[in-house]
Amino acid sequence: MAVYTAVSTEAMEQFLRGFDAGQLVSAKGIAEGVENSNYFLVTTTSQFILTLYEKRVNPADLPFFMGLMNHLANQGLPVPRVVANLSGDTLHTLAGKNACLIEFLLGVSVTEPTPAHCYEVGIMLARLRLAGAGFKGERRNDLSLDGWKHLAAQCRPNADSIVPGLGSLIADALRDIALDWPKNLPQSSIHADLFPDNVLFMGNQISGVIDFYFACTDIAVYDLAVGLNAWCFDATGKIPLKDNAKAMMSGYESVLQLTPDEHRAMPILSAGAALRFLLTRSYDWLHTPPGALVTRKDPLAYAHRLQFYRTAHL
Amino acid sequence: MAVYTAVSTEAMEQFLRGFDAGQLVSAKGIAEGVENSNYFLVTTTSQFILTLYEKRVNPADLPFFMGLMNHLANQGLPVPRVVANLSGDTLHTLAGKNACLIEFLLGVSVTEPTPAHCYEVGIMLARLRLAGAGFKGERRNDLSLDGWKHLAAQCRPNADSIVPGLGSLIADALRDIALDWPKNLPQSSIHADLFPDNVLFMGNQISGVIDFYFACTDIAVYDLAVGLNAWCFDATGKIPLKDNAKAMMSGYESVLQLTPDEHRAMPILSAGAALRFLLTRSYDWLHTPPGALVTRKDPLAYAHRLQFYRTAHL
Repeated sequence: MAVYTAVSTEAMEQFLRGFDAGQLVSAKGIAEGVENSNYFLVTTTSQFILTLYEKRVNPADLPFFMGLMNHLANQGLPVPRVVANLSGDTLHTLAGKNACLIEFLLGVSVTEPTPAHCYEVGIMLARLRLAGAGFKGERRNDLSLDGWKHLAAQCRPNADSIVPGLGSLIADALRDIALDWPKNLPQSSIHADLFPDNVLFMGNQISGVIDFYFACTDIAVYDLAVGLNAWCFDATGKIPLKDNAKAMMSGYESVLQLTPDEHRAMPILSAGAALRFLLTRSYDWLHTPPGALVTRKDPLAYAHRLQFYRTAHL
Repeated sequence: MAVYTAVSTEAMEQFLRGFDAGQLVSAKGIAEGVENSNYFLVTTTSQFILTLYEKRVNPADLPFFMGLMNHLANQGLPVPRVVANLSGDTLHTLAGKNACLIEFLLGVSVTEPTPAHCYEVGIMLARLRLAGAGFKGERRNDLSLDGWKHLAAQCRPNADSIVPGLGSLIADALRDIALDWPKNLPQSSIHADLFPDNVLFMGNQISGVIDFYFACTDIAVYDLAVGLNAWCFDATGKIPLKDNAKAMMSGYESVLQLTPDEHRAMPILSAGAALRFLLTRSYDWLHTPPGALVTRKDPLAYAHRLQFYRTAHL
């Protein structure tokens, strides 16, 4: 939530000369996402987000992210387009970083999602799946089973310093999930991080789906499992919001029916998604100096979700 | 350069209902200023900056800042208006903080000011002085002599850890400046912090003067002395940009001639302004934990300016 790389006005003006995008009339660094530096730009013709990719994004993945965003936008989804310059390139270098100029979409993120919001998110997840079908790019999900094993090994020695018993919860859950993880479900390109702050609403309609920097190729309904984790619990993670979950499922199935195999896999996929966020948050918690001005997101909210999905009969 | 206080979309929507300012359609936290939390808001009718005042701003000073901004805007200067709500209030509470809704002005800040920019800044400083004349508010400059003595006392024990000799430079300069500080020059409301990032340009014209949170009542041409420090040196502070300084003086005097007393006082006022930024930066440098993700601004750039003004024959 910060601007890591400062870009001078003069450098932005020079950068924009490579595009058919008007003259710069305003530039503000914005606190968006945790991975990159972002500027909100106003030009004489339009408004944009200028993103500089910091070290947590692998440059080799950028063509996949950009290609997927433009593919989905071309299919009519409310996904911001990555703007090409006069030479047709979408990926650039600015201030020594990889950089992209991205359409700015109106809309606001909700912090207290209602069933009405969740129904729309369910529809959107299904539409993303359908629209992504024709996309040729592939990217392995490095935050699936293998990645979890790696993170779990790094968190294990100190997990109990977050809360006693967390180490064994992680170990037990990882063992069970690895044993039963579904192997033959349909795959697709997925967003993999569709949290409320990555969805823009105008009223009750979705006007934007943003931040595709965890997008990858994986089990299609895993995206729905992430959505259930992200939108269908209270802030502590202790209270499942069943009406939200029902609405998200109905929205999804109003577009696309889950197969019986997909239905059966939802509890383990949801437990896996809970484990994924528990692990990345625990890792960040254990590796962020206490004095740093970065907000550490509480891992325990996902420990509660994980426990819910390990015992729930959905 | 961060958003310290998170405000939910729902809380912003509720807040905007108190204004005739349209419906919220976008809200982005922006990295603007060092003192406050700022959001860029787009509504169905306009665009705004929503500012939440953090602990470094004294709430008792807010009516002065808001009053001055609206006074200057009413005089036709490109200063953002503080928007009143339906009850006529400009100062509000949001997320437990004092908060204001402020006009959004287009324009970009320059990082490499030219003499043409400095000429415009000189004109603007004189216009701010003239337009401020009818403003009834008063606020003592707590970053003048008394404030410097206080800061110097707190920096003295460790100043030489920044660079050897800094402690005695500060002590000597403070003694000399205190001795000769002018007592009978005309006073006015001044901006007191008119750095390049607080001036917005559209082409070579100033479209906005922002961030009045150091504004106060003090020697009128002290504002020009701050401007000379802020716009008329290279980034290291070692090289005075004489063409910039000449242009700023000409711009100012194209609107308003300095009196002979004011002319004679410019070197000591400029040395005082250099000392002011040297002291606040040294204080921040010595009191910011090395691991913190806040950029510490290098105090030495102002030690060089101070040495220049202490030896220059202007």
